Amino acid sequence: MAHNLLKGKKGIIFGALDEKSIAWRTALRCVEEGAEIVLTNAPIALRMGEIKKLADTCNAPVIPADVTNMDDLNNLFTKSMEHFGGKIDFVLHSVAMGMNIRKGRSYTDLDYDFNHKTFDISAISLHRVLQTAYKLDALNEWASVIALSYIAAERVFPDYGEMADAKALLQSIARSFGYHYGVHKKVRVNTISQSPVKTTAGSGVQGFDGFMRYAEEMSPLGNASADECADYAVSLFSDLTRMVTMQNLYHDGGFSYTGISAGVVAQMEK
Amino acid sequence: MAHNLLKGKKGIIFGALDEKSIAWRTALRCVEEGAEIVLTNAPIALRMGEIKKLADTCNAPVIPADVTNMDDLNNLFTKSMEHFGGKIDFVLHSVAMGMNIRKGRSYTDLDYDFNHKTFDISAISLHRVLQTAYKLDALNEWASVIALSYIAAERVFPDYGEMADAKALLQSIARSFGYHYGVHKKVRVNTISQSPVKTTAGSGVQGFDGFMRYAEEMSPLGNASADECADYAVSLFSDLTRMVTMQNLYHDGGFSYTGISAGVVAQMEK
Amino acid sequence: MAHNLLKGKKGIIFGALDEKSIAWRTALRCVEEGAEIVLTNAPIALRMGEIKKLADTCNAPVIPADVTNMDDLNNLFTKSMEHFGGKIDFVLHSVAMGMNIRKGRSYTDLDYDFNHKTFDISAISLHRVLQTAYKLDALNEWASVIALSYIAAERVFPDYGEMADAKALLQSIARSFGYHYGVHKKVRVNTISQSPVKTTAGSGVQGFDGFMRYAEEMSPLGNASADECADYAVSLFSDLTRMVTMQNLYHDGGFSYTGISAGVVAQMEK
Amino acid sequence: MAHNLLKGKKGIIFGALDEKSIAWRTALRCVEEGAEIVLTNAPIALRMGEIKKLADTCNAPVIPADVTNMDDLNNLFTKSMEHFGGKIDFVLHSVAMGMNIRKGRSYTDLDYDFNHKTFDISAISLHRVLQTAYKLDALNEWASVIALSYIAAERVFPDYGEMADAKALLQSIARSFGYHYGVHKKVRVNTISQSPVKTTAGSGVQGFDGFMRYAEEMSPLGNASADECADYAVSLFSDLTRMVTMQNLYHDGGFSYTGISAGVVAQMEK
Repeated sequence: MAHNLLKGKKGIIFGALDEKSIAWRTALRCVEEGAEIVLTNAPIALRMGEIKKLADTCNAPVIPADVTNMDDLNNLFTKSMEHFGGKIDFVLHSVAMGMNIRKGRSYTDLDYDFNHKTFDISAISLHRVLQTAYKLDALNEWASVIALSYIAAERVFPDYGEMADAKALLQSIARSFGYHYGVHKKVRVNTISQSPVKTTAGSGVQGFDGFMRYAEEMSPLGNASADECADYAVSLFSDLTRMVTMQNLYHDGGFSYTGISAGVVAQMEK
Repeated sequence: MAHNLLKGKKGIIFGALDEKSIAWRTALRCVEEGAEIVLTNAPIALRMGEIKKLADTCNAPVIPADVTNMDDLNNLFTKSMEHFGGKIDFVLHSVAMGMNIRKGRSYTDLDYDFNHKTFDISAISLHRVLQTAYKLDALNEWASVIALSYIAAERVFPDYGEMADAKALLQSIARSFGYHYGVHKKVRVNTISQSPVKTTAGSGVQGFDGFMRYAEEMSPLGNASADECADYAVSLFSDLTRMVTMQNLYHDGGFSYTGISAGVVAQMEK
Repeated sequence: MAHNLLKGKKGIIFGALDEKSIAWRTALRCVEEGAEIVLTNAPIALRMGEIKKLADTCNAPVIPADVTNMDDLNNLFTKSMEHFGGKIDFVLHSVAMGMNIRKGRSYTDLDYDFNHKTFDISAISLHRVLQTAYKLDALNEWASVIALSYIAAERVFPDYGEMADAKALLQSIARSFGYHYGVHKKVRVNTISQSPVKTTAGSGVQGFDGFMRYAEEMSPLGNASADECADYAVSLFSDLTRMVTMQNLYHDGGFSYTGISAGVVAQMEK
Repeated sequence: MAHNLLKGKKGIIFGALDEKSIAWRTALRCVEEGAEIVLTNAPIALRMGEIKKLADTCNAPVIPADVTNMDDLNNLFTKSMEHFGGKIDFVLHSVAMGMNIRKGRSYTDLDYDFNHKTFDISAISLHRVLQTAYKLDALNEWASVIALSYIAAERVFPDYGEMADAKALLQSIARSFGYHYGVHKKVRVNTISQSPVKTTAGSGVQGFDGFMRYAEEMSPLGNASADECADYAVSLFSDLTRMVTMQNLYHDGGFSYTGISAGVVAQMEK
């Protein structure tokens, strides 16, 4: 059910890989709520992905950008403003890549070149995006920027490896830049700490199914879905939440504040 | 600008004292978004307040209830369900009273009878409200309950006195009951930790004006107003935020994660 | 192995019930480190307990005090200063009683008279102790006050019931009074958030054994014992930690920052 | 006053630059408490520093190591174990360098090569140190590792720039590796979040003096000194704190939980 919450707003969505991904669902919901959007992803992801289908549905251009390349980001924001004929009102940063995990290296055996690359793609990229927008003056007052995070930034989930550190870094960058962009131009920056979702990205992580059950049992409302995350993102892009900034917002059915649940107690007694 | 976000929803608003109060502004916004509401306050507050004006605007009945009296709360929920012809979808708890502050007693010279009363009115009342609703099965699935809090629950603001402890207790009750009501019936319970607002309630606190300036200087977006809080409450009552529960949500222009600001540094160098 | 860390220091230990209790182990360790102590407990607990044995070992007087009675607390501090011939350097507050749990009432069916009593005994009592000391000027500069807490103050452990709210209140009182006593006389106030311990008190709680296993599996170093807690308390009473105040300090083998462990994942896959 | 708390223990101290530095004071205190130590620093820092003086006082070898170079770290741990004739019991990581700050670049104008270098030196270095020790099996059971952090990891202090993000990353690495090393060998890893100190490192930061006054006014016990931090580190290296791990421990006179102080209110009213 749409309410025209984003009518007249223009946004950039990073990281819509396939139709299960949060960025994909968010793109659809934003358009449904009246927004115009630009889609972007890494050139290599675009080749492999099905983003054309989404672009058609959303009537949105696709502008490739490697998030670790400042020229690409400059081009993305410049072209987006040309396309919109104006500045941007919201950005979704849904970009992550765990190089050591992908190469099968455990947390106590990291390769540091991979580690740097993981941090660059998954966290520093948010700074690159914001700095690019800041220098181009590409965001309207009260624009809203959201990056997707995970509770491993606060507590250890052993199989999540270096991505935990990347998410902690991401959240710090959101806070730090949130201060400066807030003072400078009333732009708000937040992270959503989302339940695990069975996306293409998530399935790669070791022990994921056992963990999914735990997350479900530990969440009084159950795990939040990608569609529900898209709804929440819409609320944060809208004008209803203008004074929320520099926050890490748990969207997880209550997982974050549940210490133990009846279901887990029962399972532990087996 | 209304979006029909709460169309068909029914809610109870506690604590609308006068037109500056957050509860008052929230009542107006909820009705504007299509909700039907019941207004309630303590009998003595009703006598002194101008709530009739609000009730007329909102086309809402006023049902008095002392939040420390279980019969009153039973009556409130029972009558509200009769009025609506159905169960309730949202509740705003905006109730607080610092007895020792009111009597001019400092935090190191508390009267413990007053202290108990402060906790009962300002915090345990949330448990009383939720337990009443739970026993009467008065809330629909996915109903949303919000209580208003303040960051003194986490950090010391000396002049806020025992109210800090009351807010910490309130937030714990929201989490605890949020777990049980979530498991039981998908009801979500959250607190909003709001910027200081120059309400009738706020002005009573000592050093409030000096503090207001500090809060303003320490918030990259400035202090959030009562109207902005009402907007935020609407987003949390809506279906866009169904998987958010057991959270304390800062609505404060970034105050909570600002350690120091350029403005405060300048002031400290005077 | 003793190091004379508390040589010349004088302290009051609340809540040594039997030899398994944390307060009992802490009393022994403080004396071993060179401190002189006074033991206290509720009159009724003294009648049932074996505290005489501890008093003999520690060469310590036992002064009964109901922590909800200001005359008792006045008497306790006055007599303790007479006994020591001087002011007090440390206090351990290890006092808790969950009235509704004891009466078998669940969290969604609280009796509010019991609830008030739970809060008074388990949380407000810390304020009563500190206010008594403050008014009598009974603490030396740099004195150290510790109250025992539990992580349920931050996250929900359903069977812990109203005690979670009591611990949240306790921690807030520690912070609030810590500010005032710190400014006034350099006194520090902290809470230790301790692993679950199979004390007489702990065993009463429902589902405790299943929970103990979970806590053990979720703590990289395992659950902390009462003796280890006593060691930690000694470090916090000593001069090594003078600038630590208003903190809630997890002493839990890493439980607090573990989101999931390999052992729990394995258990969830059964 | 020494208590032989670290008798028989062997440790490595990173980052003793000059006699004001926390690492320097900690080295002295550890030796005073009976420990044997090895000192290390970057080759370039060693050339500029006065570390020979400290090495003489402590009867400690100095082994240079660039913390971003795995061969250097391997050499450091191997040589240290040869020197001690056994494994290591404690490590102090006191290493940080803000490249963009040093080059005068603001947070909204970062150079990303510098940014990577800042993160490598100030945060990833802790992972490098721990991974080296882990692979060499260089730490005894119950060894204690401490890294120095700052509250900018949680809240924004605008002039602290990218170092805030580096400290957030550092704290996450301490948690993550703390889990693995705890499970593997009972090794604990914590960070101390210390008051600002007028060290050679600190003075470089812009607005530092205004900030120091604020920090002092906002800390009920005042800012903690380098000597007090050394005391605290001793307590965390000792056996009194064996079950404390994966924590960020504020050593700041109460700054972290003070929302506003009487002194700051007064200043804001000027």
